[in-house]
Amino acid sequence: MRILGIDCGTERTGYGLIESDGSAHRMLGAGCIVTNPKDPLQLRLLKIAQGLRQLIEQHVPSHAAVEEVFYSQNVKTALKLSHVRGVALLTIAEAGLALGEYSALEIKSSVVGYGRAEKSQVKMMVHSLLNIVEPVDSEDACDAMAVAICHATHTASQQRMKAAR
Amino acid sequence: MRILGIDCGTERTGYGLIESDGSAHRMLGAGCIVTNPKDPLQLRLLKIAQGLRQLIEQHVPSHAAVEEVFYSQNVKTALKLSHVRGVALLTIAEAGLALGEYSALEIKSSVVGYGRAEKSQVKMMVHSLLNIVEPVDSEDACDAMAVAICHATHTASQQRMKAAR
Repeated sequence: MRILGIDCGTERTGYGLIESDGSAHRMLGAGCIVTNPKDPLQLRLLKIAQGLRQLIEQHVPSHAAVEEVFYSQNVKTALKLSHVRGVALLTIAEAGLALGEYSALEIKSSVVGYGRAEKSQVKMMVHSLLNIVEPVDSEDACDAMAVAICHATHTASQQRMKAAR
Repeated sequence: MRILGIDCGTERTGYGLIESDGSAHRMLGAGCIVTNPKDPLQLRLLKIAQGLRQLIEQHVPSHAAVEEVFYSQNVKTALKLSHVRGVALLTIAEAGLALGEYSALEIKSSVVGYGRAEKSQVKMMVHSLLNIVEPVDSEDACDAMAVAICHATHTASQQRMKAAR
């Protein structure tokens, strides 16, 4: 299954494309859609939508995975993020992709095995699980790959559970 | 100027299209995009985007007006609303419309003359200012027309201020 992981952000929206059978994963591409902080929000949303549509067209994933919104710390930031998330969900629906949504805790548990893992640990495990040779610097891209991996393992375990019934 | 006012909501997104010279306003159309609460959010966002795009194509507004997010009461609701708002801002940017964003206080002040006006007062003033003969029942549509009227008067007064300099 081919998964587009998205790490939403108004300034930097990370993305990671992986191919996975649920246990072995391979990176197809990763990076960031960067917007200009001086642009009004609607133009930044437009750039993010265009970037995501281009990625979907180019890599033709069947699934997408996005982190749930987390708002315990800064409501204003979470509200802005939700605008981006709305746009990401729209592009996913437009392309008819199956969607998985996971909390930060689920993602870290799945990738590192520990729900309160540090960013650096997530980054390291993403590199290890995807056998990435040339390091991906961007934390946003690594977070996007992490949610994609989480979705791959989650979907595979759900399929196994269904088959076992 | 032709303005599309939007009142974002996950279940009901109100819209109101008005033609205005800044002081006299006329309603061209108003209503609601209603989504199915049983549908996942991404499908509801898709329906809202499709509805707004259709309205823009049909009525060719040059401006759009949207209320700012208000989150003092319920953060979860505000986060959901922000997803819809992100999608609305995207469709506005895609169509290249000029955008006005106003707080509830600004809208009520502009339409009723009192920032803490009741919904019923807003509804009554919207009907009066637009000379609406057949009452529009939907509060969401009335709120959408209210933000459109607010944008019309705001834009006109800004133009007058510029001319006076």
